[in-house]
Amino acid sequence: MDMHDLTRQLQAKNDTKIVMFVADGLGGLPQYPGGLTELETAKTPNLDALAKRGVLGSSIPVKPGISPGSGPGHLGLFGYDPLQYLIGRGALEATGIGFELQEGDVAIRANFCTIDAAGNITDRRAGRIASEDSAPLAIKLRAVSIPGVQVFVEPVKEHRFVVVFRGPGLGGHMADTDPQATGVPPLEPRATNPDSEKTVQVATEFMKQAKKILAGHSKANCCTLRGVSAKPNPPSYEEVYGLKAGAIAVYPMYKGLARLVGMDILGNAQTLDDQMTVLEENWSKYDFFFIHFKYTDSTGEDGNFDAKVKRTEEVDGCIPRIMALKPDVFICTGDHSTPSMLASHSWHPVPTLLVAENCRTDACETFGESECLRGGLGQFEAKYLMILALANAGRLAKFGA
Amino acid sequence: MDMHDLTRQLQAKNDTKIVMFVADGLGGLPQYPGGLTELETAKTPNLDALAKRGVLGSSIPVKPGISPGSGPGHLGLFGYDPLQYLIGRGALEATGIGFELQEGDVAIRANFCTIDAAGNITDRRAGRIASEDSAPLAIKLRAVSIPGVQVFVEPVKEHRFVVVFRGPGLGGHMADTDPQATGVPPLEPRATNPDSEKTVQVATEFMKQAKKILAGHSKANCCTLRGVSAKPNPPSYEEVYGLKAGAIAVYPMYKGLARLVGMDILGNAQTLDDQMTVLEENWSKYDFFFIHFKYTDSTGEDGNFDAKVKRTEEVDGCIPRIMALKPDVFICTGDHSTPSMLASHSWHPVPTLLVAENCRTDACETFGESECLRGGLGQFEAKYLMILALANAGRLAKFGA
Repeated sequence: MDMHDLTRQLQAKNDTKIVMFVADGLGGLPQYPGGLTELETAKTPNLDALAKRGVLGSSIPVKPGISPGSGPGHLGLFGYDPLQYLIGRGALEATGIGFELQEGDVAIRANFCTIDAAGNITDRRAGRIASEDSAPLAIKLRAVSIPGVQVFVEPVKEHRFVVVFRGPGLGGHMADTDPQATGVPPLEPRATNPDSEKTVQVATEFMKQAKKILAGHSKANCCTLRGVSAKPNPPSYEEVYGLKAGAIAVYPMYKGLARLVGMDILGNAQTLDDQMTVLEENWSKYDFFFIHFKYTDSTGEDGNFDAKVKRTEEVDGCIPRIMALKPDVFICTGDHSTPSMLASHSWHPVPTLLVAENCRTDACETFGESECLRGGLGQFEAKYLMILALANAGRLAKFGA
Repeated sequence: MDMHDLTRQLQAKNDTKIVMFVADGLGGLPQYPGGLTELETAKTPNLDALAKRGVLGSSIPVKPGISPGSGPGHLGLFGYDPLQYLIGRGALEATGIGFELQEGDVAIRANFCTIDAAGNITDRRAGRIASEDSAPLAIKLRAVSIPGVQVFVEPVKEHRFVVVFRGPGLGGHMADTDPQATGVPPLEPRATNPDSEKTVQVATEFMKQAKKILAGHSKANCCTLRGVSAKPNPPSYEEVYGLKAGAIAVYPMYKGLARLVGMDILGNAQTLDDQMTVLEENWSKYDFFFIHFKYTDSTGEDGNFDAKVKRTEEVDGCIPRIMALKPDVFICTGDHSTPSMLASHSWHPVPTLLVAENCRTDACETFGESECLRGGLGQFEAKYLMILALANAGRLAKFGA
């Protein structure tokens, strides 16, 4: 039995409010053996006070040893098994720039490249063409016209852009046309499943017209298509949990991921303060709030320990405004660890805090990686966190008689 | 998605070295309530020093409460789900005596027995006939000749021997011919799956000739066939992890298990010191080393607490030679617990130590069962240990974008 079969069956409505605060990349590593992590170094009096009242644990985003990207990291926190619900690269790229994929859409991550007179690739990334040069080219490609299919082209950054085909009968199973080599032409579009023969026809026509449009442009005169993928289709929060859910995020990627599971995107916050205001304004209208904070991850990715400490303290600073609303369940966690020492996402479990009236508190005194090891939630796969949230909100009936 | 689908997709090559030291049956129990286990009693200054630097946890070999044999115990440590990759008794017995099974072979664990004039079994184990009496009989059975099939017969110990059929079209699905009772004849060979009809014909002919060969021998004049099984076929370390792996073991069983997953068998060590020398000699040639130490298990099986303590101290003594090689990831664990107080394999989680530069150390000070309970690896299924090893070696790319 799928966990969502269980939550569908057991979900109970009430007027509780759940807040899940995701400090992206929250988990870290000490700078030297025996030292403190970023979170342990940060002054977090508000989170520490909640740690005393609540229950701590360590969240394993996917499985032990697996370092997730943002897609699987968030799906796990949202309660969707990240090994079951896979988001294709094209769909994630479209999501990341805020493109609203519709049912049946096929999204593609495209690269500008250069080819020689014989049609062979000379640079797979068009010399990492500057965004100000590539964006106008992407917009030119909007002139591609294919009967019966809507074609969307969106600039991304440098050599990257997104193509979306919209129309009946398109499948997401097409191989990359990037040959991963120079001195050879782009590969012909090829279906990896019979459901995608029409996608191949559309892609072939797209490439034919794109080459004509780009011909003669010195910086990029061709492109390749990668990560072809259909819109992922996880069931909605409303359906699996009975929750009306809203997302308060700054970056398009996280708005997009929240939209995929049926959350409403609330407000247009640019700062954490704005996000708190959006939360307050929408408090009465939703059962569940996902709040995303990016900078604990980006400072970690930059390898900047001190900056990550500071960003973590910023998170702590917003806690009073959240708790003033008296959420029935408050969770603070991350979608994965991003230790500044590694300057990348990592596999290490993520410190997690849950506060609710009946959460059965533990002996933990502060919110940090080491303290979480003796927490009452133990080590758990992230996909169970939503079920714990529902339980603590009194929103799950007894299973079996 | 299978975990090996994930490691196939994410594996990244580099020049790191991983050492997994398996002290067989490492976990134990105290001799009286509140006492120390064998590992906690042993003086292990080297492992304790590593415990401070590394991260500890408790490995669950199969599932909570399951006491595994050597087969599932090691498959789990090697990262193969022991509930998915089953090794038949015949195949394990053949592996245990160092018989190199080939693709398509069918292996059988056979027992000498005695029958009366009416053909009814009088002793199912031929009075636990001594090995010096049974071995010549097993060798006599090599005279069995069946057209189109190679027949191998290998003595094992007392009433036990191994039969292997090699030829096209043989399946491993045949019921035991041991009726588990005396006063009745051995059962006729019978297929449990249509793919094994030919195996039944071959087994029937084998029994006919074997009875003739054994007729008149007073100590054992018949035999039964049990645990009929095809060669298990797990994918190789090279394929699923991208690791060139070598095994340094003394006993044939563990060499055989390592060979099953594609490890090279290194050297011909008879002692732990020899094993260290083999490790040093092969250091540059492999990415991964499996070192097997048997005596923590055999002393546990003997119910000899003090001897197990001493053998554990032997393990500690070899650690400096391993660490002098500067492995990027060093793991010390067991395939299961073998508490001397039980004199058998048990279900208790196994103390596990992992040392690597970025392992996120915990508060543990020594290597022992109780200390492992507050370790950063928590309690985890053994099958995830290889993924953790790869992650800590920087050999796994990020999952999803």
